[in-house]
Amino acid sequence: MTKPNTLKVGLIQHACDADRAVNLALTEQGIREASRQGAKLVLLQELHTSLYFCQVEDTRNFDLAETIPGPTTAHLGKLAKELGIVLVSSLFERRAAGLYHNTAVVFETDGSIAGKYRKMHIPDDPGYYEKFYFTPGDLGFNPITTSIGRLGVLVCWDQWYPEAARLMTLAGADLLLYPTAIGWDPRDNEPEKRQQRDAWMTIQRGHAIANGLPVLACNRVGFEPAPGQAEHGSLFWGSSFIAGPQGEILAEAPSGKPTVLVTEIDMARSEQVRRIWPYLRDRRIDTYGEITKRYRD
Amino acid sequence: MTKPNTLKVGLIQHACDADRAVNLALTEQGIREASRQGAKLVLLQELHTSLYFCQVEDTRNFDLAETIPGPTTAHLGKLAKELGIVLVSSLFERRAAGLYHNTAVVFETDGSIAGKYRKMHIPDDPGYYEKFYFTPGDLGFNPITTSIGRLGVLVCWDQWYPEAARLMTLAGADLLLYPTAIGWDPRDNEPEKRQQRDAWMTIQRGHAIANGLPVLACNRVGFEPAPGQAEHGSLFWGSSFIAGPQGEILAEAPSGKPTVLVTEIDMARSEQVRRIWPYLRDRRIDTYGEITKRYRD
Repeated sequence: MTKPNTLKVGLIQHACDADRAVNLALTEQGIREASRQGAKLVLLQELHTSLYFCQVEDTRNFDLAETIPGPTTAHLGKLAKELGIVLVSSLFERRAAGLYHNTAVVFETDGSIAGKYRKMHIPDDPGYYEKFYFTPGDLGFNPITTSIGRLGVLVCWDQWYPEAARLMTLAGADLLLYPTAIGWDPRDNEPEKRQQRDAWMTIQRGHAIANGLPVLACNRVGFEPAPGQAEHGSLFWGSSFIAGPQGEILAEAPSGKPTVLVTEIDMARSEQVRRIWPYLRDRRIDTYGEITKRYRD
Repeated sequence: MTKPNTLKVGLIQHACDADRAVNLALTEQGIREASRQGAKLVLLQELHTSLYFCQVEDTRNFDLAETIPGPTTAHLGKLAKELGIVLVSSLFERRAAGLYHNTAVVFETDGSIAGKYRKMHIPDDPGYYEKFYFTPGDLGFNPITTSIGRLGVLVCWDQWYPEAARLMTLAGADLLLYPTAIGWDPRDNEPEKRQQRDAWMTIQRGHAIANGLPVLACNRVGFEPAPGQAEHGSLFWGSSFIAGPQGEILAEAPSGKPTVLVTEIDMARSEQVRRIWPYLRDRRIDTYGEITKRYRD
């Protein structure tokens, strides 16, 4: 039988400010608190160094992007090393002039960069104009190997795609991790808000179930007004959570409050769950070819 | 804008008996009740004409299989015609000597067979020895066209596979439908039971969300002792449900009681939901090729 094997993880959910230094300080404070509570893996929210600037299309926002490695990776790498943790961050990457990505960076316990993932699915909806800013990722769906396991890091909009979770699983991911920035239009009514948030949790719990893997999702909180139209904006719904490999919720943060969410994951449980629910065994790979079509018409 | 377009659907959840005539009479009674309540589409549970015989491997159980068309399809086709409904049944198909399938059959309102689907993913777990009985389906994932829409009919174990739901969606399904026979080992404790049932609902709601489609799942109820080992058996958990295209539960049956579950689905809502959550637009089909691998190692 598999030996007991637990991993304490921490998610840092907070509101963001226009000032990068303020955000980094908040994030660092959360990381230190999670580490104090024993977390060996810490997941940050999407684009944690800035406001969610994609509410508008403004070329000046490209100034927020930075290189990888760059100043923020230097800062976070140092912190990961000091605390001896694996850290998953989410940055606006400047790859070249006119070429930017929404990129997750994983730091090893020695402060080095273990790997990065460039967001593959890019949304574009009113208030989420990401196609203007982010070139779709070109690194594929590949887990990042670290000292505490292989991390299937995906980002926000990816969370709605079962294909992404499956490809990470097939490549040996031990965990699925989603830095996220998702919120409500404050004009939506309460039932609509509940339904959206519930769908967001449900589909990610579904990935846990389909793949027999724990899922970690870290989302920001707070209202961010849309520049130039103060009455509009996004109310980010927090609700960061950690689910086990049957989709069971292990820990959940509130929707409106900064939270350092720390919990222990039984890493041996995935194998036990996959023995009773052996979905990988029965996949009809001989018949899945048309998944690569836009539409079967 | 899309015009309002509602469809009343009915799910027939009941316990089963060793006597085929008793089961068919119960099923027919439920279908008539659903029709009386206005249902135009009725979904039956998996293998509704018999006990869930896959609890043991016994060659005599192949006697339960029948041809399609055959006596049960004749009976159900007549009923569909009389009531003017589209009916989705689930039968143990005898295709040839030594070649059997777990097959869903869809009847048109004129009593004809609109199409069939042979269960593609076949489980094999203690108490669910389906690989002994059912040859994996060879009809692929193709919706069945009817007068009330294109039905993405899948069966039980298929419900754990996002690939199946996606392929039906890409081929134009308007609804996803799952006849099911799933239950608890009565020796499991209550938290374990809740977690399994919750996972079962969550992953199917996840398919609704990922694909922007309503999902209907019809499961049997009742305890069926395993032949020759009366203390063991399966306690089927019912809980048949209908979810909308954001995974929202529209109607749900209890876990322990025969139920005719009728509700109205807004068929125009899928298009509205897909406009605000346009997942099909952003699929990275250029990078999904390895979904057809057993494992990416």
